[in-house]
Amino acid sequence: MSSPRTGRPTPLSGFPELLPRQRMVEQAVVDSLRATFELHGFCSVETRSVEPLDQLLRKGETSNEVYVLRRLQADTDDADAGVGLHFDLTVPLARYVLEHAGKLDFPFRRYQIQRCWRGERPQEGRYREFTQADIDIIGRDQLADDADVEVTEVMAQALSRLPLPPLTLHLNNRKLIEGYYLGVGVDDPTLVIRAVDKLDKLGSAGVRALLVDDAHLSTEQADRCLALANIDGTDPKFAEQVRALGVHHSLLDEGLDALAQALDGAGHANSDSFRVVADLRIARGLDYYTGTVFEGRTEAHGAMSICAGGRYDALASDGTTTYPGVGISLGITRLLTPLLARGLLDADRGVPSCVLVVLPDDDSRAASREVARRLRARGIATEVAPSAAKFGRQIRHADRRGIPYVWFPPTGATQTHQVKDIRSGDQVDADPDGWLPPAIDLRPRIVASEEPTR
Amino acid sequence: MSSPRTGRPTPLSGFPELLPRQRMVEQAVVDSLRATFELHGFCSVETRSVEPLDQLLRKGETSNEVYVLRRLQADTDDADAGVGLHFDLTVPLARYVLEHAGKLDFPFRRYQIQRCWRGERPQEGRYREFTQADIDIIGRDQLADDADVEVTEVMAQALSRLPLPPLTLHLNNRKLIEGYYLGVGVDDPTLVIRAVDKLDKLGSAGVRALLVDDAHLSTEQADRCLALANIDGTDPKFAEQVRALGVHHSLLDEGLDALAQALDGAGHANSDSFRVVADLRIARGLDYYTGTVFEGRTEAHGAMSICAGGRYDALASDGTTTYPGVGISLGITRLLTPLLARGLLDADRGVPSCVLVVLPDDDSRAASREVARRLRARGIATEVAPSAAKFGRQIRHADRRGIPYVWFPPTGATQTHQVKDIRSGDQVDADPDGWLPPAIDLRPRIVASEEPTR
Repeated sequence: MSSPRTGRPTPLSGFPELLPRQRMVEQAVVDSLRATFELHGFCSVETRSVEPLDQLLRKGETSNEVYVLRRLQADTDDADAGVGLHFDLTVPLARYVLEHAGKLDFPFRRYQIQRCWRGERPQEGRYREFTQADIDIIGRDQLADDADVEVTEVMAQALSRLPLPPLTLHLNNRKLIEGYYLGVGVDDPTLVIRAVDKLDKLGSAGVRALLVDDAHLSTEQADRCLALANIDGTDPKFAEQVRALGVHHSLLDEGLDALAQALDGAGHANSDSFRVVADLRIARGLDYYTGTVFEGRTEAHGAMSICAGGRYDALASDGTTTYPGVGISLGITRLLTPLLARGLLDADRGVPSCVLVVLPDDDSRAASREVARRLRARGIATEVAPSAAKFGRQIRHADRRGIPYVWFPPTGATQTHQVKDIRSGDQVDADPDGWLPPAIDLRPRIVASEEPTR
Repeated sequence: MSSPRTGRPTPLSGFPELLPRQRMVEQAVVDSLRATFELHGFCSVETRSVEPLDQLLRKGETSNEVYVLRRLQADTDDADAGVGLHFDLTVPLARYVLEHAGKLDFPFRRYQIQRCWRGERPQEGRYREFTQADIDIIGRDQLADDADVEVTEVMAQALSRLPLPPLTLHLNNRKLIEGYYLGVGVDDPTLVIRAVDKLDKLGSAGVRALLVDDAHLSTEQADRCLALANIDGTDPKFAEQVRALGVHHSLLDEGLDALAQALDGAGHANSDSFRVVADLRIARGLDYYTGTVFEGRTEAHGAMSICAGGRYDALASDGTTTYPGVGISLGITRLLTPLLARGLLDADRGVPSCVLVVLPDDDSRAASREVARRLRARGIATEVAPSAAKFGRQIRHADRRGIPYVWFPPTGATQTHQVKDIRSGDQVDADPDGWLPPAIDLRPRIVASEEPTR
């Protein structure tokens, strides 16, 4: 910049941005996710933000959502021509696995927390720039079914540890529903899946019509398909209810078994604010899922899913080797932005500082800075007041930021160091090489409330 | 994706990507930087990745480096028309401060660790996508000189804690050199600054010629300007040497004083692998620096600077309010990529896992998973072997990933849990609710070596 930035800028729709206190919440959520993923041995990967357009456009339906990059002064044979920003973390993972396959160990268990971009029309829950957290397990040529149980358990653990409104993770298995539909005598289960997916929108009668008219099922077949979808997955005996429908197919048995195992693995994370349920309606539309499918929802976000994923038999292939996988994506921006906007999640201070060291006068900068150094040496986040204003003003400086403690170095009047808890007003003598705040005050805390706080 | 990704992709030049072990190094560096920044009370900010083009192009010289975004199927009146990816974190900070000024507390102390993009021709040290770590202190209308000392100290601390080859932080002060040049009788110090900046390239004779021919200095003035540039800033008595040159100007005194203070603040971080020196040659070309200027270099990167910054009197202005600031940017990608590529920095394992729990047979999955859960409950990163292969193969699975411990749950043959350190071969009885590895094994470690390890 050769001249300063002037005028008040306006926000760009679809590109949310957080204030420092809100950003602390996002950081805490990302830290918590990362800690859980690493505790389960998942390694971190970040991919470049761009992929060749031909790869981004393989999935036809997203073609209008891709942001293409162009250098402002591009050469005609620009090496970057034909690259765009990734719209998810699955396409980059597939490319990363193929490109680096020789240097990766399989099964490859990675997490990836990164921004994505989609040129969608911005609206509630739809952003043009957003952060996702993905976990995947990728095999080479084969991947044990157990991997489905594992990613379910890891994401369930991760979600259950977040300070969130009650969250439900819905599980289903494509084999279960496809096996059931085949057992009912349906030729193309995909058509049934697409119809049942509209149950919330069209109701039973509407879906029955679709099944009969479009998928060419008999009314009896249509009713049996609807009977499966209407089983209450929150009932622990849902499997018995499925069997009671009298449909038989080996794929159905396999799917029921796999779903029970995944539920069992994830069930360890159940708590007041998190539960995992079977949901025989969800199929996650996309054709490439072949086993477990996931969808996570919270009451705070209505019907909108905040995490989703499943098992795919071929994430990638280089012609000779195929890489099957299973994974879940969590939409961090989609999850947090509405909660932050409504004040349902907040941090209890706007800076990491636990202590503000006052500046008794301009000549005491070196002394105050030395106190701060000694506190930091023991892990206490500390800042020094920016100017030697009246103590009342320096205390208000701390108060505005939510810094709980103000430190007074010795002056002519006082011969000792003192520290004041500005919430209680308590002020005591303290040793800069020994004093510790209560552990709860050491770092900013995330405050979750059920009612908006502001 | 309706069909799997096929074929071996090729890397995109200028978009570096890390393997999991390398990414662990990057993460450790980012974590360390963040910890130091937060210990000093700096809050985290992330801005959106895009800015309006008119703002990105204010600094004319970067116009050919900007990546413009376009939606593949853009409307004619697209709201996104005219946005590009940010090429640094200073332009976004200026906009963020103006946009959110009413909700920020000043002086506003923030750090920002984020990706930037430049459409430059890729070469050693120049990337099209890279990560930067910036710290800045922004005032409203005014900012104490002490802020220069503070950012110097914080970045010096942050750099000194990284596992890096010896790093030198060069400091200068624009007031010092401008005051000196004014004291010598120069009308336009900027011309002298630009000429002296070429000292490494042109040598004394070349710069003297520039000063006389282009800046219209007398030969005596030119020699006095060169005398300042040639003072050895690593000599703690450099200030006396400057004064011995017999030039007097109040701005020179102010600058010398400020430089001494900044050196003193940063000097607390000096160690075997980090030192801070005065360097009366650097001016960081850009016109908007007005006080302290910084440049960090390592031997491993030659003359290339890996961090840079300074004081600017007007980061932004909305017409009525001006926001002065001081800040430093650290080029994380520029710093790490060559060291990682040459094997000078590495992690001692490729996964976070400290323990691999073996799978004695297929029926013992639940039992092995339960052991893993108990270890994780005490903070030990643990994974379960993917298949019930022979134990030798399961141990090799751990070895390939660098996992130090393999856990054997009880089987028919053994009635106890046992854990084996696969580096020493030692195998002992262990309690899944009590065993702890030595602290040094709990997390992956960063290994720095002076000679390439691979």
